[in-house]
Amino acid sequence: MTAPFPFSAIVGQDDMKCAMVLTAIDPGIGGVLVFGDRGTGKSTAVRALAALLPPIRAVESCPVNAAKTADCPDWAELGSKKIISRPTPVIDLPLGATEDRVVGALDIERALTRGEKAFEPGLLARANRGYLYIDEVNLLEDHIVDLLLDVAQSGENVVEREGLSIRHAARFVLVGSGNPEEGELRPQLLDRFGLSVDVRSPGEVAKRVEVIKRRDAFENDHATFMAHYGAEDATVREAILKARKRLPKIATPDSILEDCATLCIALGSDGLRGELTLLRAARALAAYEGKRKVHRDHLKAIAPSALSHRLRRDPLDEAGSATRVGRVVEEILV
Amino acid sequence: MTAPFPFSAIVGQDDMKCAMVLTAIDPGIGGVLVFGDRGTGKSTAVRALAALLPPIRAVESCPVNAAKTADCPDWAELGSKKIISRPTPVIDLPLGATEDRVVGALDIERALTRGEKAFEPGLLARANRGYLYIDEVNLLEDHIVDLLLDVAQSGENVVEREGLSIRHAARFVLVGSGNPEEGELRPQLLDRFGLSVDVRSPGEVAKRVEVIKRRDAFENDHATFMAHYGAEDATVREAILKARKRLPKIATPDSILEDCATLCIALGSDGLRGELTLLRAARALAAYEGKRKVHRDHLKAIAPSALSHRLRRDPLDEAGSATRVGRVVEEILV
Amino acid sequence: MTAPFPFSAIVGQDDMKCAMVLTAIDPGIGGVLVFGDRGTGKSTAVRALAALLPPIRAVESCPVNAAKTADCPDWAELGSKKIISRPTPVIDLPLGATEDRVVGALDIERALTRGEKAFEPGLLARANRGYLYIDEVNLLEDHIVDLLLDVAQSGENVVEREGLSIRHAARFVLVGSGNPEEGELRPQLLDRFGLSVDVRSPGEVAKRVEVIKRRDAFENDHATFMAHYGAEDATVREAILKARKRLPKIATPDSILEDCATLCIALGSDGLRGELTLLRAARALAAYEGKRKVHRDHLKAIAPSALSHRLRRDPLDEAGSATRVGRVVEEILV
Amino acid sequence: MTAPFPFSAIVGQDDMKCAMVLTAIDPGIGGVLVFGDRGTGKSTAVRALAALLPPIRAVESCPVNAAKTADCPDWAELGSKKIISRPTPVIDLPLGATEDRVVGALDIERALTRGEKAFEPGLLARANRGYLYIDEVNLLEDHIVDLLLDVAQSGENVVEREGLSIRHAARFVLVGSGNPEEGELRPQLLDRFGLSVDVRSPGEVAKRVEVIKRRDAFENDHATFMAHYGAEDATVREAILKARKRLPKIATPDSILEDCATLCIALGSDGLRGELTLLRAARALAAYEGKRKVHRDHLKAIAPSALSHRLRRDPLDEAGSATRVGRVVEEILV
Amino acid sequence: MTAPFPFSAIVGQDDMKCAMVLTAIDPGIGGVLVFGDRGTGKSTAVRALAALLPPIRAVESCPVNAAKTADCPDWAELGSKKIISRPTPVIDLPLGATEDRVVGALDIERALTRGEKAFEPGLLARANRGYLYIDEVNLLEDHIVDLLLDVAQSGENVVEREGLSIRHAARFVLVGSGNPEEGELRPQLLDRFGLSVDVRSPGEVAKRVEVIKRRDAFENDHATFMAHYGAEDATVREAILKARKRLPKIATPDSILEDCATLCIALGSDGLRGELTLLRAARALAAYEGKRKVHRDHLKAIAPSALSHRLRRDPLDEAGSATRVGRVVEEILV
Amino acid sequence: MTAPFPFSAIVGQDDMKCAMVLTAIDPGIGGVLVFGDRGTGKSTAVRALAALLPPIRAVESCPVNAAKTADCPDWAELGSKKIISRPTPVIDLPLGATEDRVVGALDIERALTRGEKAFEPGLLARANRGYLYIDEVNLLEDHIVDLLLDVAQSGENVVEREGLSIRHAARFVLVGSGNPEEGELRPQLLDRFGLSVDVRSPGEVAKRVEVIKRRDAFENDHATFMAHYGAEDATVREAILKARKRLPKIATPDSILEDCATLCIALGSDGLRGELTLLRAARALAAYEGKRKVHRDHLKAIAPSALSHRLRRDPLDEAGSATRVGRVVEEILV
Repeated sequence: MTAPFPFSAIVGQDDMKCAMVLTAIDPGIGGVLVFGDRGTGKSTAVRALAALLPPIRAVESCPVNAAKTADCPDWAELGSKKIISRPTPVIDLPLGATEDRVVGALDIERALTRGEKAFEPGLLARANRGYLYIDEVNLLEDHIVDLLLDVAQSGENVVEREGLSIRHAARFVLVGSGNPEEGELRPQLLDRFGLSVDVRSPGEVAKRVEVIKRRDAFENDHATFMAHYGAEDATVREAILKARKRLPKIATPDSILEDCATLCIALGSDGLRGELTLLRAARALAAYEGKRKVHRDHLKAIAPSALSHRLRRDPLDEAGSATRVGRVVEEILV
Repeated sequence: MTAPFPFSAIVGQDDMKCAMVLTAIDPGIGGVLVFGDRGTGKSTAVRALAALLPPIRAVESCPVNAAKTADCPDWAELGSKKIISRPTPVIDLPLGATEDRVVGALDIERALTRGEKAFEPGLLARANRGYLYIDEVNLLEDHIVDLLLDVAQSGENVVEREGLSIRHAARFVLVGSGNPEEGELRPQLLDRFGLSVDVRSPGEVAKRVEVIKRRDAFENDHATFMAHYGAEDATVREAILKARKRLPKIATPDSILEDCATLCIALGSDGLRGELTLLRAARALAAYEGKRKVHRDHLKAIAPSALSHRLRRDPLDEAGSATRVGRVVEEILV
Repeated sequence: MTAPFPFSAIVGQDDMKCAMVLTAIDPGIGGVLVFGDRGTGKSTAVRALAALLPPIRAVESCPVNAAKTADCPDWAELGSKKIISRPTPVIDLPLGATEDRVVGALDIERALTRGEKAFEPGLLARANRGYLYIDEVNLLEDHIVDLLLDVAQSGENVVEREGLSIRHAARFVLVGSGNPEEGELRPQLLDRFGLSVDVRSPGEVAKRVEVIKRRDAFENDHATFMAHYGAEDATVREAILKARKRLPKIATPDSILEDCATLCIALGSDGLRGELTLLRAARALAAYEGKRKVHRDHLKAIAPSALSHRLRRDPLDEAGSATRVGRVVEEILV
Repeated sequence: MTAPFPFSAIVGQDDMKCAMVLTAIDPGIGGVLVFGDRGTGKSTAVRALAALLPPIRAVESCPVNAAKTADCPDWAELGSKKIISRPTPVIDLPLGATEDRVVGALDIERALTRGEKAFEPGLLARANRGYLYIDEVNLLEDHIVDLLLDVAQSGENVVEREGLSIRHAARFVLVGSGNPEEGELRPQLLDRFGLSVDVRSPGEVAKRVEVIKRRDAFENDHATFMAHYGAEDATVREAILKARKRLPKIATPDSILEDCATLCIALGSDGLRGELTLLRAARALAAYEGKRKVHRDHLKAIAPSALSHRLRRDPLDEAGSATRVGRVVEEILV
Repeated sequence: MTAPFPFSAIVGQDDMKCAMVLTAIDPGIGGVLVFGDRGTGKSTAVRALAALLPPIRAVESCPVNAAKTADCPDWAELGSKKIISRPTPVIDLPLGATEDRVVGALDIERALTRGEKAFEPGLLARANRGYLYIDEVNLLEDHIVDLLLDVAQSGENVVEREGLSIRHAARFVLVGSGNPEEGELRPQLLDRFGLSVDVRSPGEVAKRVEVIKRRDAFENDHATFMAHYGAEDATVREAILKARKRLPKIATPDSILEDCATLCIALGSDGLRGELTLLRAARALAAYEGKRKVHRDHLKAIAPSALSHRLRRDPLDEAGSATRVGRVVEEILV
Repeated sequence: MTAPFPFSAIVGQDDMKCAMVLTAIDPGIGGVLVFGDRGTGKSTAVRALAALLPPIRAVESCPVNAAKTADCPDWAELGSKKIISRPTPVIDLPLGATEDRVVGALDIERALTRGEKAFEPGLLARANRGYLYIDEVNLLEDHIVDLLLDVAQSGENVVEREGLSIRHAARFVLVGSGNPEEGELRPQLLDRFGLSVDVRSPGEVAKRVEVIKRRDAFENDHATFMAHYGAEDATVREAILKARKRLPKIATPDSILEDCATLCIALGSDGLRGELTLLRAARALAAYEGKRKVHRDHLKAIAPSALSHRLRRDPLDEAGSATRVGRVVEEILV
């Protein structure tokens, strides 16, 4: 009920924060996977993100947060049709959630008996136009992850049962956290996340003391603390809103496309999602930085997040994937 | 809802495109298995296929897309009996679909109580006269794959429950995609697919840049892009329609039959489905190329797709199956 | 719906065809197991068998195809009692069939409430006086195979639920196909099949071309093809009918009984089903050949089919079971 | 429906036949376990037993075959109370039978609503005063075997569900067959069977020919065959009835008790069921032979059946258990 | 229905009989675990115990055998409130009993609809003030054993379902039998049994003959046998009743407490239940022997039963636990 | 029903008692994990804690023990709104408890039909403002532990089913006991407990005799014993109440923060929960000791409990985790 820890009060973890900001600028980049040890503040960050994100305008009673009445699903019984501001939805997908709860439940009995479209929307409806967060995504069953990625990609949730068919918009960014020591995602699924980042506990005393101090201030000096970082959060929010407007106009020189392809071939990443995501994220970064076109530096900055989860494991190379990406980036994009 | 990426805008992947075109000319060739890494555009291709295929003429309210009222199943409660044009159906079989949803659900209770044939048709009904697509077919349960192949072969779906029996035409081509690294199909099942093809990410920068550019144009310059490739797609569609007419008249010299048998014996492929498919696909190819009879070159072109999934694995030969087929073809069909 | 491929148009596979013919002469020989690679035409052969078999005379509305009204089960609500000719039933047991569907479903609720014998007959009822075919019998659950073999042996299906008991004749020959590479039957179950045969793809070009040509003619020159082989099938059918009449009069010299016992002891086959089946099949063969008594040659011809699935595996002898049987036959029955 | 193969027409298998006869004289000896290869006529023997056993006198409508109305269970709704002769029940316990079907089903709902004891008796009720046969007892679940042995020992079946309690007499002899190669019974369960016997296919040609001839005569010369062996069976039946009368008067010298104990200690058989069964079976044998007291020879004859399934396995002694028992008997009971 | 074999007619097995008598004097000692081979009369002993135990005075219709109406549970619908004598309950917990059957079933539906406390008491209710016997306790599921031990310790059974809560007294002694070769109890559970004893078949001929003779007399000379041992049982019963009265006055010198602690430390037994049980059982033994205070000899006598199941296994010491306890007792309590 | 064994009568076990007292002063420290052998009095301690804890003031009929009517959940049907004193709740979570029983059951049917919020609160509701005790937490399913830790951390229980959402305060301290030999918690879960302690049986005779004596006095001289230790318990309770008031004013010098961070880096503990807990527990300890600010000695005293369950296992260092923490504390905090 109380305000969450502010996004900008998170000490370090720049890759994670950057990835989240970029998906806020262009949700088409796809989901974000956050790998990391226990206790590194992954879920704190997601809750912080919820408070940072720009609000949306939505029909008050619409179960999928549609921007205007015409976009509300036909099966919804709308109450108030007032257009209101509401926080960008950030929905938590609990471990062990059933498929019905995720996609929504279709009451066949009632539909057949009374001829009504008896649909109880699920978490996917509530996540429309926002974020869906899955803690420990590697512990989720494959077919649920698969389903989530399908919907996230198509932007539409289709529930079909015995000849009945219900649809609604379900455009959201998937944010998953996971501890790689506790089981891995199939490469097939990994590939369908847009970006991936690693988070770790800081190794310097000063940083850790800073973390403790901020936590302490958050709890014991709440008002002052929130005033300070609330302002910082607002700055980030404004920057996101500006970048969104700028995004469609960002130019992409052919040399940048070739860089993308060369990089992915050199890294041996399967498929073509790698370069497409790399390009898209680089454009969003350019927009966030207020640039007019994509530069090589944008590719360099974003390549580890966009590509490292798409490499095959190399048993002879002990460096982590992000390091391998960085190394190849250095060689290729001189 | 929006038009899918056009079939002819797919860069490369000629084997896959050829196999799909041939089954559109002669559905009797059987299903197509597409093997390949993640992100190589397998599902893009299937959705593209849906838009390319020639439309069918069907009774508007018929649940199995019958061409005339007399062919509609007796259990269907028909509404409009107008004959309309509709796209060739391409049905997606979701991972985790129940048997009821696939074959249709027979409501015994209702049938017994009210004496009605209470049948809720499934995906097989909707796929009649079209395509049924299964992503990651190797993750599907064997008995479902078995059932699908049985129906695909017999062209009829029979649902029997406690003495009741429902039938309907279910002539469709099965298209399955799979990643061989994630589990294999039993040879028994492999053999029942007509053709198989491998798809890979292109290895040249130019091709990959081309892929990215087309994707980009598809998203950012939609109308122009669709106009261009829509016309190309129409050309392919016309060629398919012509080949269908020509097919029954294609001659098959005895020497071609001997080539088929010699090839299969040399490859040690079990059973006789190999030569039968090879012959059938070669005929369709001859028809597509506008020829009057089958030539050795048709066999050569189609042998890898028709035979490579029917070889026993040879642990001493590291080359892929398609390569082994090609090599034997070169030796035998000089 | 269309006529199946004719039995006599099957190229080669003499052992399988012979075994099927013998069980048509004397169903008491027991079931037939057909082992073989994929695509060797096992299910084609069974469907061909269905068309070859002599028709039966049966009460039109009888659920178990009884020959006269008095033999119809007491629980059946008979409609037309006309005696009609109908094809010998050949019933397909689908993979994954439930026990209820196989043996029939007894509706306890209804039986108790209304005092009616509410029995919905299953596949065993339909198979009475005919054949029951199981594709990939080695994939079926043991307790179903067990049950099928019990009924096949006793000729009666007894369904008992909570004190209620339903019976009906269920005399049929079990034909099972299986690929030994995909799992084996327990010796316990193997032993209860009467005969076993191996089928393989022919290894000569000429034979394979012949197979392709016949298939092609079957599809493209249907009428002529069926006229030709339909006549051949009729000849076989007549020979079976004559052999059935001759069978009870076939003499069996004592020396033949001793040959049977000597052979089985030499082969170390467990139990006594081996010699009993050998004797019975040899008699049927003698009848088919129009002889008056059983000769050693009949034993020789039939021994591999009657005994090879009853041997213990011999790890030091790499020859297949049928070869081992043949070798011992040569030594003993000089 | 037709008469089974006669008990006395079984060639050889004397141990098995003896064990069955002894339990017919004194059912308190406990169950019989028949070990043996497939096809050695185990189930033929049990069905033969059913026809051999002396008939019982029972209340016509009593579900547990009680001898007089007063002994019928209080929950039974009796119809005809006439005392009739009926064959000694031999009940077949099918593989996969549910616990409800075995012990009977108690309809709680109905009992609570209408205050009736709504009990549907199971196989145990029908087996009262007779035999319960389990084919392949080693494939049955342990808790069912356990339950069967408990009831067999106590002679009473108690079904308790949610405070309701139903009882009825269930005195029967358990006959189990098993193939030791397909899984073993826990020693705990083995010990609770009274006797065990091995059956094997005869190794001599003459015997096997005799088996085939009798089978043949049974099928082709039924009337003569049954007349002959029916008379032999009647002789055995009479001998059993006489032995039953003589049994309570058989004397047991102290030296015989010491022999029993000495033998069991020498064999290291756990527990005391060994000597108790040995004594009891020896007495029944003495009665069958028309003797007045137990002799050492009776112990010798019966020891292998009474003790061999109670030995611990001795990995250094390759001889079978029965041989080990025989050897120790020879040493001790000189 | 017939009287069980008398407790005092059991040959030998003194430890087991002593342990049972002590728990009859002081049920607070906790449960008894009986380890032993099959056929050593474990369940005979428990049934004998039932007949030996002093009767209790209880409200006739009380489901938990309460001594006076005020102690009957509030949820019980009492009928006759007469105080009657009834045998000490000895309840058998069948293998495979459900939790509902053990703790009782709470009918939520009925409770909510009619506002009644709809509780169907289970085996724990019936065991109140008596014994609960579990054959093969090592085959029971851990959570059931856990639950039983919890209730046995707290003396109260609490059933809670969805906010409803039912309680009743459930003071009983748990007697479990087990064969250590068939699976072990977790140390956690072992520790919560008060005493443990081993039973074995006697190794001397004379003893075994005695066992057989008594069994024989029990069956064939029932009346005389029961008259004799019934009197012996009565003597034991009287001694138990006297010991119960004497128990609260038994003195415990400090040196005895130190002996207990020293012994347990020397044996390395985890936790403190060891010395507490040892002390309690020694006091009961003193009472049974008519002494006024606990002596070292009482500790010596009872230590193996109280401590041997609480030792960690010592792989270097092949002696059984009881022997190890005995050895340490000899060293320490000189 | 009778008073539990008093907290201050527990002999030794100072770490455990200290950890429990600290969480009573500041529940924000998080849960306590108690590791130890069987029989070391873990559950005795928890029950003792229940009696020691200061009482709370709560609305009489409130299902979550709210302090005032306004804080009672909106779904509760309140009866008496009197503010009463009640013991701090200590709720036992039984092994095998269902999720419904833990979080509460939401009756969708009723909610939809009657429009009522039909919520049956679970154990979490009852534990609000108190303790939740889980015996053998390592045997609980991961997703239940996860859920419990989530709620414990957020202080709120949210039950969502098909669009309905129920909330209530659920602030409690989780106390889990476990035997590390019987299965471990995932590091992920370990980390979310605030403190961990080891308990062992005392190794000196005098201490163990003291334990036995107190237990004996508790049972045989109850009144005197309770009077004595009840007074001691009251002293502890008063100290806790004073410490709670003092806590917000405890100062934390920067050097202490640096000590915390240095210690955690040196120990290589993942994440930041280590230092946060360490700091919080040290403050509570300072408050309990009546100090005004945190000293290094407080860190030293509390570090093993706060950090040892957060170390990675070091296979080269055989010392237990607590010892390793102690050693590093000695090196770093000189």
